[in-house]
Amino acid sequence: MNVDLLTLFPGMFQGAFSESILKHAADRGLLDVRIHNIRDFASDKHRVTDDYPYGGGVGMVMKVEPLAACIEYVRKDRPASTVILTTPRGKTLNQGMARELAQEDGLIIICGRYEGIDERVRDLFVDREISIGDFVLTGGEFASLVLVDAVTRLIPGVLGSDESAEDDSFSNGLLEYPQYTRPPEFRGLAVPPVLLSGNNREIARWRRRESLRRTFLVRPELLEAACLTAEDASYVKELRSCGGNAD
Amino acid sequence: MNVDLLTLFPGMFQGAFSESILKHAADRGLLDVRIHNIRDFASDKHRVTDDYPYGGGVGMVMKVEPLAACIEYVRKDRPASTVILTTPRGKTLNQGMARELAQEDGLIIICGRYEGIDERVRDLFVDREISIGDFVLTGGEFASLVLVDAVTRLIPGVLGSDESAEDDSFSNGLLEYPQYTRPPEFRGLAVPPVLLSGNNREIARWRRRESLRRTFLVRPELLEAACLTAEDASYVKELRSCGGNAD
Repeated sequence: MNVDLLTLFPGMFQGAFSESILKHAADRGLLDVRIHNIRDFASDKHRVTDDYPYGGGVGMVMKVEPLAACIEYVRKDRPASTVILTTPRGKTLNQGMARELAQEDGLIIICGRYEGIDERVRDLFVDREISIGDFVLTGGEFASLVLVDAVTRLIPGVLGSDESAEDDSFSNGLLEYPQYTRPPEFRGLAVPPVLLSGNNREIARWRRRESLRRTFLVRPELLEAACLTAEDASYVKELRSCGGNAD
Repeated sequence: MNVDLLTLFPGMFQGAFSESILKHAADRGLLDVRIHNIRDFASDKHRVTDDYPYGGGVGMVMKVEPLAACIEYVRKDRPASTVILTTPRGKTLNQGMARELAQEDGLIIICGRYEGIDERVRDLFVDREISIGDFVLTGGEFASLVLVDAVTRLIPGVLGSDESAEDDSFSNGLLEYPQYTRPPEFRGLAVPPVLLSGNNREIARWRRRESLRRTFLVRPELLEAACLTAEDASYVKELRSCGGNAD
């Protein structure tokens, strides 16, 4: 996956790709990230990249010319890449969208800034506008990191055979069950006995129920869309009748 | 605002706070970020921080002891801080939650990893579990950056008087209207004449309608919760009847 990040603050990405899965993906040739400074594409001598909004209002707007020049420069090398703008005005990222993006040849991601970018950038170049959630960020830099991380781990070969992209929260539409590792007791808190029982059927049942319970308590709306067995549905009914305290 | 980030990959944060609003906030003493390597708090000679999950399954689970030691070390200096775990099992971050968090004395943020962390960390130490969205990330590092960014810009004094935390998307429950800056025409695309008219009332009306239209097209569910005037409501009705193509 080729990823081009277009930013006014390249320094913010300095360590982001230096560790963990993103580094491993890059080392194995599965991820190629390039950072481009939009300011390098401003043609005037002060390298101005923003200006006052037409019609008035607070804040500054990113100008169309430097962004247009930057996008066109990047696209010469990466003509098949999808151009993405990270913006609160976009569709909200979810796991399904991450899976779609993992199929793309490459991603050119524009990190928005200030009060916004000139609308003509969107009209001329942008294929997809993506928001990572209903909150306001200073700019698109961290949103881009989130997007690259979510997409990269879905590229075949990035996760090892002992890691699982599928077993995580949202892959099955439910929140994950609790996990425990050694020691069996810590400050009076013991691991649930069923997990030490060796009875795989009982362990799977306990985990499924904990997933359902957790989802019911924290994100009940997810249960509407989740794929539930008859046994699941009956347990959810029990949870509903007792406010989440079912066995 | 004191922020302590607990991570197994401190290098990923390198550069993240070196530019833009977060740097300005730190320079002005409004944000104090410290990065802690959880591995430094593992007591065995191999500094092991993860182990196999009880009950079986793929992946590794972060152990309770190093995290407990790290959290307790940090809390000595920052006893009033709220302990947050970034996890897909948490409540979803939104602008209201960011506003609440901006009132806190400080945030101690645990960046989860692998298949999860030992549940007893949550039971013993965690005040809030926060997810940034319905997608799977490799770990909590980038989610933490998003959280710190969203919260920091709401701390009084961080944004200058000419910047606005309130005018952005989600502050009024609608997506933002399009912005334009010079030049008035670029590759045949002109700025909408109303924005050059100098008629502030007409400009405000156009912007409000564009916000409504954009919200209707991309995130119609937001209109249910937004605060609409009678004029807004009548325009939304028009949008509904013509699929977003109203004047």
